[in-house]
Amino acid sequence: MTKILIDCDPGIDDAMALALAAGAPGLEVVAVTTVGGNADLAVTTRNALALREFLDLGDIPVAPGSPGALLHPVVRADHVHGPTGLGAAVLPEPVRAAADGHAVDVIIDTLRAAPGEVTLVAIGPLTNIALAVRKEPRVVEWARDLVIMGGSATRGNHNPAAEFNMLADPEAAAIVFRSGWTVKMLGLDVTLTAVVTSAVLDRMRPLGRLAEFLIPAATSYGVVTADGGPTIHDACAVAYVLDPALVTMTPAVVDVEIRGEHTRGMTVVDFRPMDRVPNALVGTHLDVDRFWDTMLDAYGRLAERLG
Amino acid sequence: MTKILIDCDPGIDDAMALALAAGAPGLEVVAVTTVGGNADLAVTTRNALALREFLDLGDIPVAPGSPGALLHPVVRADHVHGPTGLGAAVLPEPVRAAADGHAVDVIIDTLRAAPGEVTLVAIGPLTNIALAVRKEPRVVEWARDLVIMGGSATRGNHNPAAEFNMLADPEAAAIVFRSGWTVKMLGLDVTLTAVVTSAVLDRMRPLGRLAEFLIPAATSYGVVTADGGPTIHDACAVAYVLDPALVTMTPAVVDVEIRGEHTRGMTVVDFRPMDRVPNALVGTHLDVDRFWDTMLDAYGRLAERLG
Amino acid sequence: MTKILIDCDPGIDDAMALALAAGAPGLEVVAVTTVGGNADLAVTTRNALALREFLDLGDIPVAPGSPGALLHPVVRADHVHGPTGLGAAVLPEPVRAAADGHAVDVIIDTLRAAPGEVTLVAIGPLTNIALAVRKEPRVVEWARDLVIMGGSATRGNHNPAAEFNMLADPEAAAIVFRSGWTVKMLGLDVTLTAVVTSAVLDRMRPLGRLAEFLIPAATSYGVVTADGGPTIHDACAVAYVLDPALVTMTPAVVDVEIRGEHTRGMTVVDFRPMDRVPNALVGTHLDVDRFWDTMLDAYGRLAERLG
Amino acid sequence: MTKILIDCDPGIDDAMALALAAGAPGLEVVAVTTVGGNADLAVTTRNALALREFLDLGDIPVAPGSPGALLHPVVRADHVHGPTGLGAAVLPEPVRAAADGHAVDVIIDTLRAAPGEVTLVAIGPLTNIALAVRKEPRVVEWARDLVIMGGSATRGNHNPAAEFNMLADPEAAAIVFRSGWTVKMLGLDVTLTAVVTSAVLDRMRPLGRLAEFLIPAATSYGVVTADGGPTIHDACAVAYVLDPALVTMTPAVVDVEIRGEHTRGMTVVDFRPMDRVPNALVGTHLDVDRFWDTMLDAYGRLAERLG
Repeated sequence: MTKILIDCDPGIDDAMALALAAGAPGLEVVAVTTVGGNADLAVTTRNALALREFLDLGDIPVAPGSPGALLHPVVRADHVHGPTGLGAAVLPEPVRAAADGHAVDVIIDTLRAAPGEVTLVAIGPLTNIALAVRKEPRVVEWARDLVIMGGSATRGNHNPAAEFNMLADPEAAAIVFRSGWTVKMLGLDVTLTAVVTSAVLDRMRPLGRLAEFLIPAATSYGVVTADGGPTIHDACAVAYVLDPALVTMTPAVVDVEIRGEHTRGMTVVDFRPMDRVPNALVGTHLDVDRFWDTMLDAYGRLAERLG
Repeated sequence: MTKILIDCDPGIDDAMALALAAGAPGLEVVAVTTVGGNADLAVTTRNALALREFLDLGDIPVAPGSPGALLHPVVRADHVHGPTGLGAAVLPEPVRAAADGHAVDVIIDTLRAAPGEVTLVAIGPLTNIALAVRKEPRVVEWARDLVIMGGSATRGNHNPAAEFNMLADPEAAAIVFRSGWTVKMLGLDVTLTAVVTSAVLDRMRPLGRLAEFLIPAATSYGVVTADGGPTIHDACAVAYVLDPALVTMTPAVVDVEIRGEHTRGMTVVDFRPMDRVPNALVGTHLDVDRFWDTMLDAYGRLAERLG
Repeated sequence: MTKILIDCDPGIDDAMALALAAGAPGLEVVAVTTVGGNADLAVTTRNALALREFLDLGDIPVAPGSPGALLHPVVRADHVHGPTGLGAAVLPEPVRAAADGHAVDVIIDTLRAAPGEVTLVAIGPLTNIALAVRKEPRVVEWARDLVIMGGSATRGNHNPAAEFNMLADPEAAAIVFRSGWTVKMLGLDVTLTAVVTSAVLDRMRPLGRLAEFLIPAATSYGVVTADGGPTIHDACAVAYVLDPALVTMTPAVVDVEIRGEHTRGMTVVDFRPMDRVPNALVGTHLDVDRFWDTMLDAYGRLAERLG
Repeated sequence: MTKILIDCDPGIDDAMALALAAGAPGLEVVAVTTVGGNADLAVTTRNALALREFLDLGDIPVAPGSPGALLHPVVRADHVHGPTGLGAAVLPEPVRAAADGHAVDVIIDTLRAAPGEVTLVAIGPLTNIALAVRKEPRVVEWARDLVIMGGSATRGNHNPAAEFNMLADPEAAAIVFRSGWTVKMLGLDVTLTAVVTSAVLDRMRPLGRLAEFLIPAATSYGVVTADGGPTIHDACAVAYVLDPALVTMTPAVVDVEIRGEHTRGMTVVDFRPMDRVPNALVGTHLDVDRFWDTMLDAYGRLAERLG
């Protein structure tokens, strides 16, 4: 049973990642922290609270964190995730409130309480993670692992150079990649192949209440066809924790460009570093068929539980 | 009675600033937080603890904070302040321990507990202040004022462009100057005139135990002559809180350069901004005679108390 | 008959590009200018002079230009092209001397003399081209076209972000891409597929004296196998002029990063610019089979001429 | 007799500098080259041609050069120098045309023709000088000296960090300061004291036709009072060539910031470089009284000649 703390900005693909974590037999979500990213912090926190209840995540803390980046002006992906952050999907209003503490303290305290046991999965801008590292550098030792969705070894998505989560807070990303962690980076090179096709959608249809959430979420996120569709970036990070064999990971030195005029937020990935020790394992290939098998297995288990 | 929280990296001039705060009739120090800067965090914290006792600051919290900058490699001023951070001055080992909390939380909690009452005085690198702003943006409303020692409207001291405290954490400084505060900036334009001359030293001699600390501290910090000597940068910030009339403050827009190749950490001070609202009052002149009268009055009161 | 002026830094692949130009029935080389790049200017100029004679390019001017970049420290590719710049290939010492004028003036004067007739083919760092544009902005109108080998829409070769020719003079590249030209850019996305395999090598063997030059040049430039081998970057630019149908060209806005810490010299290629007019056509696919047919047809004609 | 080549962008203070050169007994102007700066190149060239005739500079070449900066967007000072570039002063239309060659070639050829004899005086943006250095690096040896008006060791004038001539082409300035020259830099630290007061104006009044030009030029350039008035920046550079004793020059390493967000074009002047050899002598003090004596002596001689 792998314990994970998910720092996220739900977000449609965040929701699908949380659903995977909720259903996967080998994962235990111990806390959820939120950050401004795909939508404003109030929205991402509301969605995390609603998902805790809808996905039956139990009595874990959901703690709000940083509304915006350390230094960068706010970048949002409202055009992708819509005003609610969940596209056309509708969730019941959450009943229980957020935890009292700040995301940064929940991260630090959760990791400190169980050194070596909890994997940190960060699928939004890295602001909270960076602040946690700077407030308590020992989180790097305490975490079992840090797995992120973000970056790219080739081209970006928000602009030609940068992926959205990295562009949304380049300084935070730079802090994290210099922190001492060997970051497990699931970037666009992997996630752009994690696409909801019509075949995938068909496999989601029998999932009852869960399907009623997943299908409008996915279809409002992109046009589903036989061989194309919306990209479920964030789920790749959770899937990798569940089954590392799904992804080919290549050691690399990753630098985050924070000064460029046209390249801010770019992850510069060097697979053949001359004289530097790799600070990351970068996902370079996803076994897409097994990925969806894993996803739908977990979704099936969750659907059964949810009815 | 003005309540102040001092964030510092003692440091000889930090010690002289704390002594001013301890002796000044109009000031009440409510907490001291520490940061790596003039020396490593362990050293600056040890010195803050020793000064709390030596200066009879009472039962206030002393809380350690950030060991290094947000992103910048560590810059130290050991060559100025020596291995102990206090030059030739020697203080008894502190008896009481540091507070449990982190400096960032002590800052946030102290300001939250008394909105509008506490002035934040930051005389080291701005790392803790930046982290506090990012963790809890409302500190900007809660603080009565933010007064810093740092920056320059003309030339730097650590290099031609940058002053030491700003260079030690340019990103933190950029965060603080963009936070919404009207920063009261006591930079080199003011502090380079706050010099311990031999006449000043003579006025310190009768101060008993306090003199036994101040004089070796000052004289190991620079060569004292009739018209020159070591610069007591940090004391200017506390003196300004005590008596704002000591300093001419000019409204300005201050930007902190974080991208330059030769100018990182420079405070670019625009006294005639075209279409931007000033985010700072920048000290442009110090009434040096009154400054030393104020200093020595406070030192005299403190010396009487200390015996 | 398309007239071309080749600005180059021979360099093995430059030599193979010049050989293509010399043999191709539809091209007339009107001048060759040199720049420091793959090797020092003295070496690249010596090689250009030797190639003029060996390839029987006639009585055209060969003019040396810029030894180094506008601002960037010198970057060389000696490790690739060897001390002579031509790997294991050996050419007779040239008999005739270089032209009197400077490359920049030869470029300007050649274009001015025949407006709309001469295509500029730049296959080294863009220093000479940038200086020509700044000295005489009308070269942009006068040139029939500007075709370059350089840049990449994905990853670099000299480092993860930058291709060699662009990295060798980022400011020059920035000048050229902002000059008003619609630059025809043959970058790594195309050129990395222009590889000398053992099948290609077999087709070169019967080419007599030319083969005696090409084969040692190619084989010292990389290991030739059935499906891999050295990359003949520069020849792609000349081949494109000869037969534009060989390459799929996609309109794009190209910015050259000159400020980045990890990305200097990167060509940031935006294929879907929001509100900017494309300044480039970027090669995105090479018809490799037809490319080699074109190459070997020209090499065959040249070999016949050379005996 | 010191031979000087003046590269300029007249400009009111350029005109007053040319008038000094025309009247000074020890100077011989051998050529004038122009650059876009205070006004567009067409305007600065027209003014240089008109001044050649009005100031009786003889049959020297006047050659137009670069219309704009190497990379920087165009910066103009029209608000200072007015649409004609000469404020309220009016000159007869020039009769003779510009030289055929480009400024860059006139600079190179003039220096080559008399190695060690000609001092280059650059009082506009450094675009032409940078292009000359890059086209022919030996100009650095051939010039007797390079004297510029530009930069500052403290604050800028066009913005808080940068002086106008440097900001107008930061990359060109960077090239020049890295070229190998020991640049004699007359920046704002000196030139801001070269002010036309009402006493100075009184001394100009008896100068006949020359006064009819100088006085409207000066008075439209700034408000003249007993102790203040317009600043004749450019004349300081010529005056320094004429009599180096007028200015205190301090050795320094000067770097030009080209990457900063708020500091582009700033000259970062290090008077105490640790391990680098000075590349400049920077003017730190002007003997203002002797400066005006020198100016008015030359103006008097010229006035006599002009009638």
